[in-house]
Amino acid sequence: MNTHILLINCPDQKGLTASITRVLFENDLNLVQIKEHVDETSNHYYIRFTFTGDVVADKLVRELSGVLPKGTGITLNPRPVKDIVVLATKEYHCLSDLLVRHHFGELNANIKAVIANRPELGEITGRMGIPFHCISHEDKSREAFEQEIFARVESFNPDYVVLAKYMRIISPPYIQRFKHRIINIHHSFLPAFVGANPYKQAYDRGVKLIGATAHFVTKDLDEGPIITQKIIHVDHSFSATAMRKAGQEVERMVLAEALRFVFEDRVFVTGNKTVIFS
Amino acid sequence: MNTHILLINCPDQKGLTASITRVLFENDLNLVQIKEHVDETSNHYYIRFTFTGDVVADKLVRELSGVLPKGTGITLNPRPVKDIVVLATKEYHCLSDLLVRHHFGELNANIKAVIANRPELGEITGRMGIPFHCISHEDKSREAFEQEIFARVESFNPDYVVLAKYMRIISPPYIQRFKHRIINIHHSFLPAFVGANPYKQAYDRGVKLIGATAHFVTKDLDEGPIITQKIIHVDHSFSATAMRKAGQEVERMVLAEALRFVFEDRVFVTGNKTVIFS
Amino acid sequence: MNTHILLINCPDQKGLTASITRVLFENDLNLVQIKEHVDETSNHYYIRFTFTGDVVADKLVRELSGVLPKGTGITLNPRPVKDIVVLATKEYHCLSDLLVRHHFGELNANIKAVIANRPELGEITGRMGIPFHCISHEDKSREAFEQEIFARVESFNPDYVVLAKYMRIISPPYIQRFKHRIINIHHSFLPAFVGANPYKQAYDRGVKLIGATAHFVTKDLDEGPIITQKIIHVDHSFSATAMRKAGQEVERMVLAEALRFVFEDRVFVTGNKTVIFS
Amino acid sequence: MNTHILLINCPDQKGLTASITRVLFENDLNLVQIKEHVDETSNHYYIRFTFTGDVVADKLVRELSGVLPKGTGITLNPRPVKDIVVLATKEYHCLSDLLVRHHFGELNANIKAVIANRPELGEITGRMGIPFHCISHEDKSREAFEQEIFARVESFNPDYVVLAKYMRIISPPYIQRFKHRIINIHHSFLPAFVGANPYKQAYDRGVKLIGATAHFVTKDLDEGPIITQKIIHVDHSFSATAMRKAGQEVERMVLAEALRFVFEDRVFVTGNKTVIFS
Repeated sequence: MNTHILLINCPDQKGLTASITRVLFENDLNLVQIKEHVDETSNHYYIRFTFTGDVVADKLVRELSGVLPKGTGITLNPRPVKDIVVLATKEYHCLSDLLVRHHFGELNANIKAVIANRPELGEITGRMGIPFHCISHEDKSREAFEQEIFARVESFNPDYVVLAKYMRIISPPYIQRFKHRIINIHHSFLPAFVGANPYKQAYDRGVKLIGATAHFVTKDLDEGPIITQKIIHVDHSFSATAMRKAGQEVERMVLAEALRFVFEDRVFVTGNKTVIFS
Repeated sequence: MNTHILLINCPDQKGLTASITRVLFENDLNLVQIKEHVDETSNHYYIRFTFTGDVVADKLVRELSGVLPKGTGITLNPRPVKDIVVLATKEYHCLSDLLVRHHFGELNANIKAVIANRPELGEITGRMGIPFHCISHEDKSREAFEQEIFARVESFNPDYVVLAKYMRIISPPYIQRFKHRIINIHHSFLPAFVGANPYKQAYDRGVKLIGATAHFVTKDLDEGPIITQKIIHVDHSFSATAMRKAGQEVERMVLAEALRFVFEDRVFVTGNKTVIFS
Repeated sequence: MNTHILLINCPDQKGLTASITRVLFENDLNLVQIKEHVDETSNHYYIRFTFTGDVVADKLVRELSGVLPKGTGITLNPRPVKDIVVLATKEYHCLSDLLVRHHFGELNANIKAVIANRPELGEITGRMGIPFHCISHEDKSREAFEQEIFARVESFNPDYVVLAKYMRIISPPYIQRFKHRIINIHHSFLPAFVGANPYKQAYDRGVKLIGATAHFVTKDLDEGPIITQKIIHVDHSFSATAMRKAGQEVERMVLAEALRFVFEDRVFVTGNKTVIFS
Repeated sequence: MNTHILLINCPDQKGLTASITRVLFENDLNLVQIKEHVDETSNHYYIRFTFTGDVVADKLVRELSGVLPKGTGITLNPRPVKDIVVLATKEYHCLSDLLVRHHFGELNANIKAVIANRPELGEITGRMGIPFHCISHEDKSREAFEQEIFARVESFNPDYVVLAKYMRIISPPYIQRFKHRIINIHHSFLPAFVGANPYKQAYDRGVKLIGATAHFVTKDLDEGPIITQKIIHVDHSFSATAMRKAGQEVERMVLAEALRFVFEDRVFVTGNKTVIFS
């Protein structure tokens, strides 16, 4: 039997779940799982259903629209395998993890292309059978470089853009165009270190744990909605280099988990936060 | 506005959630949170609602019964602060944690009494203002001892019995009488060590992590439904004593979390497993 | 047989360990454990020995001084049970944990007194048999208040001052007087939130984990050498209050571990970092 | 300046460290790091030095032998990059992680070959430029199959054999021949599940965390010295398949960490335990 996914969000009011589930019942559909959350700050309602049965999609969405407030977000069966483009620079750990999972069909996504501003990662990408595009930022204005990068990105019409340690700034117009569809890894520590060489800063500060954050990119750099965060314990015997390597392990794990949540349609963005129906 | 809790479980069938939420809507109640799970093995449906509004309890339960299958478990607003009895022997770490949380009103439970088969923990219990009953197992048959313990337990008519490192066996008839209402901590390792002195075994085995499990007691000793599990990392520099101390830290954390889940009515038992709506 | 602890630190140079261990050997002492670290930044040498045998302390220290550079720090058998004073305000979770461990002889410290700027924690402190001093900050200048607090602290001549959620600033002169002997808990998140109500900030930011840091207090508030850090995972279903409670669990664990390290003489401060021979 | 590694183990007695460090000092060598442990059960002494300076290897080892008990294990500068052979069956997650790390020079090992009893992993191995040998177990006696496998393994004269989800038994003679040089991953849970389909057992048992163990293979299957263990939290919403996938993430992390320890010469085996100078 087919399993379906239904995502709905709207301002909260009484009777929403009753209205939705009645429509599902009247269509002879069988609920398998409900995940629901009302954000207290915005009083906004989020719900994710999985259900089984035979669906006439247009009819179901029309009937749901009929019982829900105007402007309600209704998504029935989002594309199950996302099209993505990966941007990278020269660190291999996040990219190669994506390539391997993709190769074995466990990424829930098609990697349409890897685009990098340096050539180093071309070899592994090619070995894994994915097109690699090197677009250097050298001898170009930032504007020209970005325009070239995103023209290439858009040529693949991706659902999501994944920044796998892509070390260039992305300007607001491109962020806006891919709103909540660009996913980044941030090397965030306790306390958070900004600026260049965060692992050197972490080493100098003598931290006892280091972490990483996967988030959607918004115009406030590294301040977008957090998807997932993990940490790893370190101690005084870790050099700055050893901390960087430990950080890479965490970055890879965090990105893999964040992409799983996003590509399985488990993530809503609410204001500057996420609701994750894991 | 009052917040209410509603717990329902029954064999799964189509339309259950629709039926329940329609009743809630017709009673002018506003859903705050829904947590739902269908156990695939038994095809049993579990759901937990929190909602706000004015409730006439009898009427609401009657209306819910009317739309749900015969034999459905319906619990509206279980007692918010549970009455409990704590059984202990001589280790202080779990008991004192409960006593402190109780003292500051964060246990969600009234500790009616601490009953122990040894006297050592009487002092701390007394200092925290809780009645302490020492019922020695010495010079008694196991049957006589258990009868005496549980006569005392039952005199307090507790909702739950918490075994805070109580080191005596409990016989099936008493387990049956408090089915899924006795909560125990097990010093479980990776791999699990049974028998006496598990920390010595763990030390001899050279484990790199030790753990603990909180579970409901069933007649198969230490095999009841698991509520929560945690671990702590150790290494070769830990003596068996240091491992025991590390284990006590984990035991305390595990018990505290398990009791929070249980006392907030977030736990269903399904077969030999739990569903935890955390 | 007696076990002894020896702590040595000095600028690194060739032959230090050889010189020290030769002295120990010539005194017929048997090494049980060596923990050693050279800080790469400062090129400073830190070593901690445990050994067994009969020791004439003066003679041993004199002989060690004879083979080590001038100004070397040599500590033989620091006081095994530290005298401490605990400062608190009104949150109970850290203080009560210390009181319970102290009561059962597992703190490695004598709590000489609890001093608080509010009265709430007097009851639990009294129940656990520890003197409680309430010194209100109201109607006093900050200077007068601090002078009164630290006059009381110093009357106990403590080895360490533990800030168990003490919510008042400590001024540089007092910090200097107890250099690396005041231990604090900081509610530090990923990313770190400064200012009032960090859990509200964390909630607003939608973090997926919260943490805590135990550190020595230095004149740069909350910037002193880190002793230990831990985190706990949270998600969108946590309210700001639930995050605060989760944070308190972590704070308690972090403080307990930090104090164990410090009171067992496992911690060196090197610049603004710690070396922890756990 | 060159950095050297020195590993020594022998029955514990007074003066060992003094003797060794004196020899190092007399050879004008500068200690960078000492990690030392005495196993209390066997009273055996383990120590790992890193030091800098110019070394005449023969002379240094001869001088060390001269001051240490007969039969002392002395290893100076073990091969920095190990030769390894990887055995696999059909699960890709551990193998591909090794291949990627190898490709980017972060494995501290040369993968001489991947040998599998099934063909599936040939493609990824080939893409990463490593020789792949498929030796099927079908239509062969276990003895013949094993003989063939290990003849091939031995043709590469590896320092270590890594079992990356190799699902065949290894017989005692081969284990003996590669004593403490075969590294395996075990899907160990809390409590440990033996036999077929451990994730199904874990699901049926309703565990709240799953783990994995990397260990040296000894003749008692899955009972060899533990190198590293990690866990991941799961809950009732995980199907047996989801648990298996979570388990694979842990297996990969555990194997990567264990190999890092082993290949950096940080691991001693003492009886059935390991000492890990991480």
